[in-house]
Amino acid sequence: MKHFNVVIVGATGAVGQELIKVLEERNFPVKELKLCATSRSAGKVLFFRGRPHTVEVTTPDSFEGMDIALFAGGAASKEFGPAAVERGAVVVDNSSTFRMDPAVPLIVPEVNPEDVKWHKGIIANPNCSTILLVVALKPIHDAARIKRVVVATYQAVSGAGREGIDELTAQTKAVLEQREVKPEVFPYQIAFNLIPHIDVFMDLDYTKEEWKMVKETQKIMHDESIAVTATTVRVPVYRSHSEAVNIETERKITAAEARRLLGEFPGIVVMDDPAGKKYPMPLFTSHRDEVFVGRIREDNSIPNGLNIWVVADQIRKGAATNAVQIAELVVKYGCLARG
Amino acid sequence: MKHFNVVIVGATGAVGQELIKVLEERNFPVKELKLCATSRSAGKVLFFRGRPHTVEVTTPDSFEGMDIALFAGGAASKEFGPAAVERGAVVVDNSSTFRMDPAVPLIVPEVNPEDVKWHKGIIANPNCSTILLVVALKPIHDAARIKRVVVATYQAVSGAGREGIDELTAQTKAVLEQREVKPEVFPYQIAFNLIPHIDVFMDLDYTKEEWKMVKETQKIMHDESIAVTATTVRVPVYRSHSEAVNIETERKITAAEARRLLGEFPGIVVMDDPAGKKYPMPLFTSHRDEVFVGRIREDNSIPNGLNIWVVADQIRKGAATNAVQIAELVVKYGCLARG
Repeated sequence: MKHFNVVIVGATGAVGQELIKVLEERNFPVKELKLCATSRSAGKVLFFRGRPHTVEVTTPDSFEGMDIALFAGGAASKEFGPAAVERGAVVVDNSSTFRMDPAVPLIVPEVNPEDVKWHKGIIANPNCSTILLVVALKPIHDAARIKRVVVATYQAVSGAGREGIDELTAQTKAVLEQREVKPEVFPYQIAFNLIPHIDVFMDLDYTKEEWKMVKETQKIMHDESIAVTATTVRVPVYRSHSEAVNIETERKITAAEARRLLGEFPGIVVMDDPAGKKYPMPLFTSHRDEVFVGRIREDNSIPNGLNIWVVADQIRKGAATNAVQIAELVVKYGCLARG
Repeated sequence: MKHFNVVIVGATGAVGQELIKVLEERNFPVKELKLCATSRSAGKVLFFRGRPHTVEVTTPDSFEGMDIALFAGGAASKEFGPAAVERGAVVVDNSSTFRMDPAVPLIVPEVNPEDVKWHKGIIANPNCSTILLVVALKPIHDAARIKRVVVATYQAVSGAGREGIDELTAQTKAVLEQREVKPEVFPYQIAFNLIPHIDVFMDLDYTKEEWKMVKETQKIMHDESIAVTATTVRVPVYRSHSEAVNIETERKITAAEARRLLGEFPGIVVMDDPAGKKYPMPLFTSHRDEVFVGRIREDNSIPNGLNIWVVADQIRKGAATNAVQIAELVVKYGCLARG
């Protein structure tokens, strides 16, 4: 089997470190792994397959000879993405920079794998909340056509990276010790609180995070007729995002049918046994790759509706795992820039 | 002004202690205040208007000579409610025991105050999540008729009383110190977790808490045509409940109009200035009596829809304040059992 040179940009952050783990766990055919980051993190040593790798400062030349460049997110994508493509690497980008560019495929491998075939050097990894959502929606949409989705999110602090995780711990300690809390990463205290504000405010007073769930869902599903409305909320949970999702379909679908369809879909674990107190929770889903779906109920308020509860690890399936799965598709379909 | 003998049953719990505070703050015309609880809490001393009151064991005779009996919730309502009525007290009951009894009014004073007039001795205080919801729905319903509501809740641990509050603190410390967590009050660990399971599971796999939001809303609003579907979730927050509410109306209502209607309604504080980072959060709403509404947006997915975000202190407006407001109505309308 052919092996490939892979570079991770932003290797020292929460998503970057998870990318290293996931490449290792999934036994991705890596020839050489290069780890890059900003000058602040350069020189750090991280391990891949038991061997130490020293983190380098990202420069345009970091991509020389690289087949695949995994960008963990942030400003580096805009700065170095095009340079990586010029040097012959296929970029899998976890930032929002290129997601809505019509020339860039936006991929969730369980949902629209074929889109990898038309990439022009850059493939975008969707927003974490959108990834969870579309995996759960896809089998329902295929069976009954989804007309409308109302979603409320419960998003973990890991969405803001390592700094978000550290801030929750520090603030929680401060509250318990009755010390003053100083928010730095989030707009307000997140410990023992909820913040209905993720990313910046935009049209109609929705946040960018909320619009991402609308627009990215339509792009990934290739269906602009799916109407989505979202309220996104940060919660004091470390790393799994949860979503209360209300779905209206064209055709009636029973809870039993939904349970079967979801259970048969790749990447989904149905965890839905009320009598046995089984339903997805961040406690059980963190550090797992699957999207967990439970609380599957026929909507009592309309003829063709469903309520479901979706939970998945934001750093894994919401970011690193999905990115590595995209890289696997690139290899599978032979869409590398270099033969 | 006439003054009244008031007894609080369950005086030592989270809601009971708040009832004492609220009676004092709102200057309720109390002649004598009697505090009752189970034998476990009898003998404790609590203060009302600066004077010590010793907690007594609740017995049927506790209600002799009492004008108003405030039941904080739990099993005592069923055990002693009828005895209190027989002895001439008007019962304001915070438990779910009598809420759906057609002979018992279910009241949120801002929404259906007139219902107090037909009570037969017992008046029920609604479920905490329902109180928040109906206060926010009422001005919208009056203006544009609500057809359907999709609600996802973010419920504080105070919904499980003092024990719930203590469990969140104890578990949070245990997680931070990497000690084992033993759930006692909630079905699973609540610290840094979410539990999509409040009260028991019932028809169609909805929980009792979810059905309460459906049925109690219809009863309070006197309108069984309002279709409500709910997903209720426990979150690691101390005492304010939050709700992401999607509303479909018969008549189109703009965000500006909704903001005005909500702002003019008694008991609501509109906190909705995205540019100024103003929106309701448990951090700001706890220990307050009002229902806070923000993130008011026209729903982008249907012609006549709104999304709002509602937060209020579960122990205050969700329980104690609403109960004392009901007692105020009893006095105002002269519906006491005794002249």
